[in-house]
Amino acid sequence: MIDPLRSPLLTDLYQLTMLQGYFDHGMVDTAVFEFFIRKMPPKRGFLLAAGLEQVLEFLEGLRFGDDELRWLRDSGRFNRSLINGLAGLRFTGDVYAMSEGTIFYTDEPILRVVAPLPQAQLVESRIINILHYQTLVATKAARCVLAAPGKLLVDFGLRRTHGAEAGIYAARASYIAGFSGTSTVVAEPIYGIPIYGTMAHSFIQAHESEETAFEHFSVSQRDNVVLLIDTYDTEVGATKVVQLAPLLREHGIHIKAVRIDSGDLLEHSRRVRAILDHGGLVDTGIFASGNLDEFVLHRLLASGAPIDGFGVGTRLDTSADAPYFDCAYKLQEYAGIARRKRSEGKATWPGRKQVFRYFDHAGLMAEDELVLENETRDGEPLLQPFMRDGRRLDPATKLNEIRERAHTQLSRLPDRLKAFSDTPPYPVRVSDAVRKLAARVDAEQI
Amino acid sequence: MIDPLRSPLLTDLYQLTMLQGYFDHGMVDTAVFEFFIRKMPPKRGFLLAAGLEQVLEFLEGLRFGDDELRWLRDSGRFNRSLINGLAGLRFTGDVYAMSEGTIFYTDEPILRVVAPLPQAQLVESRIINILHYQTLVATKAARCVLAAPGKLLVDFGLRRTHGAEAGIYAARASYIAGFSGTSTVVAEPIYGIPIYGTMAHSFIQAHESEETAFEHFSVSQRDNVVLLIDTYDTEVGATKVVQLAPLLREHGIHIKAVRIDSGDLLEHSRRVRAILDHGGLVDTGIFASGNLDEFVLHRLLASGAPIDGFGVGTRLDTSADAPYFDCAYKLQEYAGIARRKRSEGKATWPGRKQVFRYFDHAGLMAEDELVLENETRDGEPLLQPFMRDGRRLDPATKLNEIRERAHTQLSRLPDRLKAFSDTPPYPVRVSDAVRKLAARVDAEQI
Repeated sequence: MIDPLRSPLLTDLYQLTMLQGYFDHGMVDTAVFEFFIRKMPPKRGFLLAAGLEQVLEFLEGLRFGDDELRWLRDSGRFNRSLINGLAGLRFTGDVYAMSEGTIFYTDEPILRVVAPLPQAQLVESRIINILHYQTLVATKAARCVLAAPGKLLVDFGLRRTHGAEAGIYAARASYIAGFSGTSTVVAEPIYGIPIYGTMAHSFIQAHESEETAFEHFSVSQRDNVVLLIDTYDTEVGATKVVQLAPLLREHGIHIKAVRIDSGDLLEHSRRVRAILDHGGLVDTGIFASGNLDEFVLHRLLASGAPIDGFGVGTRLDTSADAPYFDCAYKLQEYAGIARRKRSEGKATWPGRKQVFRYFDHAGLMAEDELVLENETRDGEPLLQPFMRDGRRLDPATKLNEIRERAHTQLSRLPDRLKAFSDTPPYPVRVSDAVRKLAARVDAEQI
Repeated sequence: MIDPLRSPLLTDLYQLTMLQGYFDHGMVDTAVFEFFIRKMPPKRGFLLAAGLEQVLEFLEGLRFGDDELRWLRDSGRFNRSLINGLAGLRFTGDVYAMSEGTIFYTDEPILRVVAPLPQAQLVESRIINILHYQTLVATKAARCVLAAPGKLLVDFGLRRTHGAEAGIYAARASYIAGFSGTSTVVAEPIYGIPIYGTMAHSFIQAHESEETAFEHFSVSQRDNVVLLIDTYDTEVGATKVVQLAPLLREHGIHIKAVRIDSGDLLEHSRRVRAILDHGGLVDTGIFASGNLDEFVLHRLLASGAPIDGFGVGTRLDTSADAPYFDCAYKLQEYAGIARRKRSEGKATWPGRKQVFRYFDHAGLMAEDELVLENETRDGEPLLQPFMRDGRRLDPATKLNEIRERAHTQLSRLPDRLKAFSDTPPYPVRVSDAVRKLAARVDAEQI
């Protein structure tokens, strides 16, 4: 059985046709590939790295099973040198990377793979697939966190993520960025991420009346009563909550919050707050959801909306205003010689690179420098070794440590890069050595 | 072991908290939920249904394993009535749906689930997750097919899809819509979708010269030689291809096509076509890729770009100009009584519904009508039974039949709906019976 979601055949066909060429011609020397983002998407001042853990797991587990090898043979598309090459293939290379939860900028490699060419080539598609999406969501989630400081933020996006894995990765990436948790249940047993959930409109609708639905839900939940009040009329719903509260109080049940999921959230939250306060429910919070993203959060809170928490879903998990990054995993060196792609608008910096970060007197990020691996600097080197000869150097970093790292990184970000509109780019200097190497490669490569 | 990608815990927590309420209060009567899209995204005139097969597989396989039940117990969050209810839970309901490959419009249900309330509720998150994404990609892919009639179209998007499953679903959905195939290898063993692939820039860069890379690749591939010519300079690359051709011809190798992946595709394709023709390679095609979508395809071909095939990737597989649909899976009936959500901007039509389609004299779609299930009409009824008592009525439809259906459907689409700009909406009439039912539900539901 081929598990399509975990198979090494979850790759682009050209990886296999290229590998055939490499094996046919004995091109199995050491290759160096780096993953980086070429262009900052609109209205973003920084990027937040995520997904490394899943890349390392993928590399550790890389192997072709019997069914995959049989399919390769039976397809008639590949020759014996490829199939033999894949049969025993394991990832035996080195990986250098920025820790997850690190802030980075365009053209900075966040991952470097050093391995025999066929291995380093084969893993391209899936490495990009993993890093691209988690970094996409982590970056947008970090912006939501900046837009709603101190508020409860919960990932609500599973249903409109692009497939199962996106749902799980979105929960992970948003948690790293500072979300309190997710509604996606399986994220708790798998990653230990706190999960949150209330009720859907169908729960209300299934009951004969909204009042009965509120009562049934409260009795069943007791410690976690959040009532959805917008199924029919938001303010009427809030009034019913006030009426129900004394009865519940007799049974020791406190209404933690009400949820609003439609309409003008600013207006509704104000009216609902007034109804709750007037009814004595000053300790009952307001939780809002529906078409939220960092821009809406920022506007709502700037307008003083009395909302205590937000369920952020579709627009976060699809990164709706920028649903992809222009990113690449490019060959920078082969057999000891630096390489460079020069395609229009897609030229790369050659060689094995490191990124140093410099801070100002206040401890804020001031400038980064892209250097060759062997250049030394006083700044903080951002790429560190994670895997040597196909084995991890350390156990997986705990998710809460990654989250803590992201939090610290965000606290060292200059204010201008936290803006929700286009900002002047963060300065990333390219060292003379990198520039000279590029010029030399250009001169030699015709 | 919990497989997070296939676990029934891949759902929103509120499904479980609601189920606890349902089980606590014996609410296990028959519920009817329908999935539909609320709003047409910008610049789209129609929608193309996809994903039903995976929904049926999900429903057939739904069960809580020992590890999932243990986690539910150990979490301390759920009571015994929920855990017992989930322990033996199987999907025992009925499913009505539009066949995959059917064109549909907003507010038309493409799936109806009729099942005991807890079952029908629990499956909401994953059903939306599957149908939403595949329909999103199928719709955009169909527009690419309309933009490039007769051209070879290949899904190239795996690396920037949102996770593994999105990569696989995108291959499937775009094939249904009329793409020739995909670059995602595993789509062939799993779905029988034709796969296509050439080479990456790294293959060229890994060689000492572009010429050697072209030669190595051609010798290894023989029958499938497509050469990527834009690594350094597109036109120089084309000239090298012309120079290499006689040598390859001696070995019986024909250069099927060259690929251009950067720059102004119209200009480059014209110049490259001239170079190839002048060099006698009139049978060597031009294949283009890089930032393509239906808008770019339409412009390129309207300008007469001499391009024979396209690799369409990121913008297709993320549906970049509309990365999500406003869609919903809503309770329409419970315990024999029609239900309706009235939230602002999100009101639904109650009851079990059918969609009839009417055609004009030329056989083109003229109008649809949303009716109650028991209303009869002369038009074509679009929803059909697929599952009864949790069992499929027929074996899975072959993918090529679905693809054929989509092709026929697209041929019956009026021209105005194929436009690449905003179009007047296709008329979907709502029957008097549906309207009356809605009014009655509103009057009864306070």
